[in-house]
Amino acid sequence: MRFTSEQRHDDGVLERSFTLGDIPGILWTPAAAPAPLILLGHPGGLRAMHPRLSGRAHQAAAAGYASATIELPGSGDRPRSVSADQARADLRAALTAGEPVTDDIIDRLVLPLVDAAVPEWQAALDALLPLPELRGPVGYSGGVISIGVRLAVVEPRVSAALLFAGSFVPRAIFDEARQLTIPLLVLLQWDDEGNDRRMALNLFDALGSTEKTLHANLGGHTGVPAFEGDDGNRFFARHLK
Amino acid sequence: MRFTSEQRHDDGVLERSFTLGDIPGILWTPAAAPAPLILLGHPGGLRAMHPRLSGRAHQAAAAGYASATIELPGSGDRPRSVSADQARADLRAALTAGEPVTDDIIDRLVLPLVDAAVPEWQAALDALLPLPELRGPVGYSGGVISIGVRLAVVEPRVSAALLFAGSFVPRAIFDEARQLTIPLLVLLQWDDEGNDRRMALNLFDALGSTEKTLHANLGGHTGVPAFEGDDGNRFFARHLK
Repeated sequence: MRFTSEQRHDDGVLERSFTLGDIPGILWTPAAAPAPLILLGHPGGLRAMHPRLSGRAHQAAAAGYASATIELPGSGDRPRSVSADQARADLRAALTAGEPVTDDIIDRLVLPLVDAAVPEWQAALDALLPLPELRGPVGYSGGVISIGVRLAVVEPRVSAALLFAGSFVPRAIFDEARQLTIPLLVLLQWDDEGNDRRMALNLFDALGSTEKTLHANLGGHTGVPAFEGDDGNRFFARHLK
Repeated sequence: MRFTSEQRHDDGVLERSFTLGDIPGILWTPAAAPAPLILLGHPGGLRAMHPRLSGRAHQAAAAGYASATIELPGSGDRPRSVSADQARADLRAALTAGEPVTDDIIDRLVLPLVDAAVPEWQAALDALLPLPELRGPVGYSGGVISIGVRLAVVEPRVSAALLFAGSFVPRAIFDEARQLTIPLLVLLQWDDEGNDRRMALNLFDALGSTEKTLHANLGGHTGVPAFEGDDGNRFFARHLK
């Protein structure tokens, strides 16, 4: 891992860009160290997502957490995936035609992404956690929910996860969701134009953890109320000891 | 209103029993006055409900809120309602036989209760709010959700409501729910053996307020996690200024 730039913000947060091999990433650390680390999940495209990720990182820093994120495979400046682009085109065609989105499309769109991304997030943990300003246990916060589920199942360093509800979850991920045991908080935007509410509720139902909470708020995909940031911090405060 | 007994608890909370006409009630006030008042809703039967109501009142007092509750019509030591008892027997017979619970049974069970209870909660506000240790705005917290919905629609002194999801909500109450405008937090126990999850989600969907949040937790009817008490206090802190 190599730090490529750094910026100290007015609230004392140090924001550093890094590369992990050819994967770009960002680390935000609060003044008080060592801080428990929260991995910030997102749908891909770090540059476009930066304002929202940065907002989440500063809100987490105010509660004492460091945050880190990496670019997803096939997004941002990373090499695109021909098969993922094809699956995305098939998805768009089905939605435009008002046809059902088949399991095949969902599997082709999501499963290779999960297969590629999860080991990268684990490699990011390997690189980040030795830093003296960071410590475990680790939280995962955000989407893609299929990545969050897989990572939470296979990675013992992740002790709690705040998952953003999403549609287009492969059946295989439902099966993995049933194996989850860590505490979970799921955020659902009730009127999310891009998400299927019923599928999101079905996935919440399938999650195997005995401590799981759903927070549903009125509004669209990007309309998560600010108070959910505080709720998320309190969720992690209960579980990242 | 007449106070009939009082008890000072170790945490400084003063608990007083009162009667309002022939309606028994309880008022809990924190040491710091005047405190915003939260009305504690419940399914009826103050004596059996006392441990849980008291727990909620002490948790609210720790955040600076006073709490009050009154017995429901037909419950506890109050005169029973022959028609409500008949509706309850019909409900039990339908459930035992595995037959659908008809709108007629739900209407006969719930609507007369709402019609009778809501003016009593309003009368309780009339009697309580002049006390120097209390102030508005007022919150409503608890079940019966049909009572909470009606009260929140007709009573302008209620500025925010934390509603416990429940089944057996009359269609007429769904129509009233669409008229709601105050901020709402709805608690749903995901595995509540006595509640229909789909109906609870449909009612949440119908609520007219632009700020509404659903908190669903794993577990049965009485398994609401302790952290939801803190979440409720923060919800009221945002809205009972």
